Amino acid sequence: MTTDVLTSAAAGVVPQVLGRTRDLVQPALRAAVARLDESSRAISAYHLGWTDAHGVPAQGNGGKAVRSALAVASARAAGAPAETGVPGAVAVELVHNFSLVHDDLMDGDTERRHRPTVWSLWGAASAVLTGDAMLGLAQEVLLEADSPHVVPAARLLAGTTRRLIKGQVLDVAFEQRDDVTLAECVEMAGGKTGALLSGSAAIGAVLAGAPAEAVEALAVFGEEIGLAFQLVDDVLGIWGDPAATGKPVYSDLRAGKKSLPITYATTHGGAAGRELAGWLAAPDPADEAELARVAALVAAAGGREWATAEAARHVATAEQALSALPPQPRAELTDIARFIVHREA
Amino acid sequence: MTTDVLTSAAAGVVPQVLGRTRDLVQPALRAAVARLDESSRAISAYHLGWTDAHGVPAQGNGGKAVRSALAVASARAAGAPAETGVPGAVAVELVHNFSLVHDDLMDGDTERRHRPTVWSLWGAASAVLTGDAMLGLAQEVLLEADSPHVVPAARLLAGTTRRLIKGQVLDVAFEQRDDVTLAECVEMAGGKTGALLSGSAAIGAVLAGAPAEAVEALAVFGEEIGLAFQLVDDVLGIWGDPAATGKPVYSDLRAGKKSLPITYATTHGGAAGRELAGWLAAPDPADEAELARVAALVAAAGGREWATAEAARHVATAEQALSALPPQPRAELTDIARFIVHREA
Repeated sequence: MTTDVLTSAAAGVVPQVLGRTRDLVQPALRAAVARLDESSRAISAYHLGWTDAHGVPAQGNGGKAVRSALAVASARAAGAPAETGVPGAVAVELVHNFSLVHDDLMDGDTERRHRPTVWSLWGAASAVLTGDAMLGLAQEVLLEADSPHVVPAARLLAGTTRRLIKGQVLDVAFEQRDDVTLAECVEMAGGKTGALLSGSAAIGAVLAGAPAEAVEALAVFGEEIGLAFQLVDDVLGIWGDPAATGKPVYSDLRAGKKSLPITYATTHGGAAGRELAGWLAAPDPADEAELARVAALVAAAGGREWATAEAARHVATAEQALSALPPQPRAELTDIARFIVHREA
Repeated sequence: MTTDVLTSAAAGVVPQVLGRTRDLVQPALRAAVARLDESSRAISAYHLGWTDAHGVPAQGNGGKAVRSALAVASARAAGAPAETGVPGAVAVELVHNFSLVHDDLMDGDTERRHRPTVWSLWGAASAVLTGDAMLGLAQEVLLEADSPHVVPAARLLAGTTRRLIKGQVLDVAFEQRDDVTLAECVEMAGGKTGALLSGSAAIGAVLAGAPAEAVEALAVFGEEIGLAFQLVDDVLGIWGDPAATGKPVYSDLRAGKKSLPITYATTHGGAAGRELAGWLAAPDPADEAELARVAALVAAAGGREWATAEAARHVATAEQALSALPPQPRAELTDIARFIVHREA
């Protein structure tokens, strides 16, 4: 199964379970967003891909909602109907999108999913407020779930949100530093990517009242898949095919991003790593021949090999965490995991 | 009692109950903030007045924590010990401070409580993230309360937060408009000031399991006190004594702020109101003689009289809402209300 999840054969194929989940979660997500003030509602609808910037309904390209899918599969993994996971699915989707809207503002990114970002269309204040509104709404929706396990679910969401914010805090701080260790870089990825995938994979089971060990196993699964995704994404950020990733070749090198393979290379990569670190201190991202040379340095310093091996290791750990599950929910979760790890391959 | 609450005799006198509450709530608030990531923790500690910008402990001037005091008095009003209200007190204080940190950023304000604001010291990204962290933490703390009534309390907090954000959304939108009606202006004040004071006055009783009518009465009390405060604050924003308010004379006129008395004057103030509206369309805030003339226009258009009468009416409604309470909790709540309405008198 390890090879399965890391094989790109499945790349681009949206698992059936994602479509089924979307049909189940979308009405609840739309009903939740409808409760926001007029401005936050309209801006959220745009950000989620439901409308264009003028409010005209659009054929949604609002992401694949993998976190929702995990939340629903998580309820099923605990033996509950899919519906039990829906309030958790809506909540994690809102937390994810709160963080995207705020991160785009902080990072100054003008495009997401091939469309202008919220702050670039409506300004900083609206981006701050729409994100705030989505974060608040996430808890509100979850707290209204018809489940005797709302309190632990809402506590899980709050703790997850705290780790997610910490990940972004570290990301912002690391941009000002050139001495970030590999452990710090992994911690940041755990916060930015692992935390919410972990919370998503666990929250359905919590709403279903699953025993602590089952919840913990699902949380580990989500966390490990998150780290695997980040490693694969970082490899693609250097060596990905622009036709497949939609990003320019060597995009992370152009952006001077201290991603996981790059940090491995500079901190564990001997002479090649030191040469790489020197280049990063005064990069020349305009010269494409230079970028090819730098990408080769990352590889020579072991960054590519390490990241690929680490991704495989995290996928294996994720799978092991599911070993006690019956075949069907395990297959669903594995399908989603494969899609997450390879969505940009 | 109405006259009592509106009399400035008590101005500047911090009621004993505020001091007692602070001793009770501060340790819990500090313990909560200690759970945040290092950056959000340090910035929150500065914002709350516990440290200077370098992290050196300071003699706190972090506001009077009136929302905490209301939350604790609210629990006592429901016949519960003060301690029952503490998680609610910490939560509303965090929501209040989340909104201050984000609002200062959006409004571009460089000073609060005579100190540089968070964004002006640490930049926009840190202000966004620290606010996010405080908002998330508010729910987390409340969800950990040792009370069987955590879910309704957390739902109250979430709904309150949604209204608070809506108030700021309206505030931002109104800056771009010159046709704001009085009803819209009152709605904004209800969101920005009424919502969280209402939630604060009710949350302790919710945590104590009080019946719905008692909770509703306390919510009305807080809401009305919030509106009264805003009206008084807006009057002081034009006619307040700089020595007492700490703001320049005619400060709201200088800032072109469409406050409640000004909106009343422009929409209900006849010829004087129309002249005022003309000036507001192209204000000249640099000329102090001109500002005196404009302030006189607001008064001639009935803005001052209306705002003062409305404040008294809201205070009376607030008091009436407490009529079923025993004397002691009622006196506590009234003490806090008097302090809120007059804190800048």
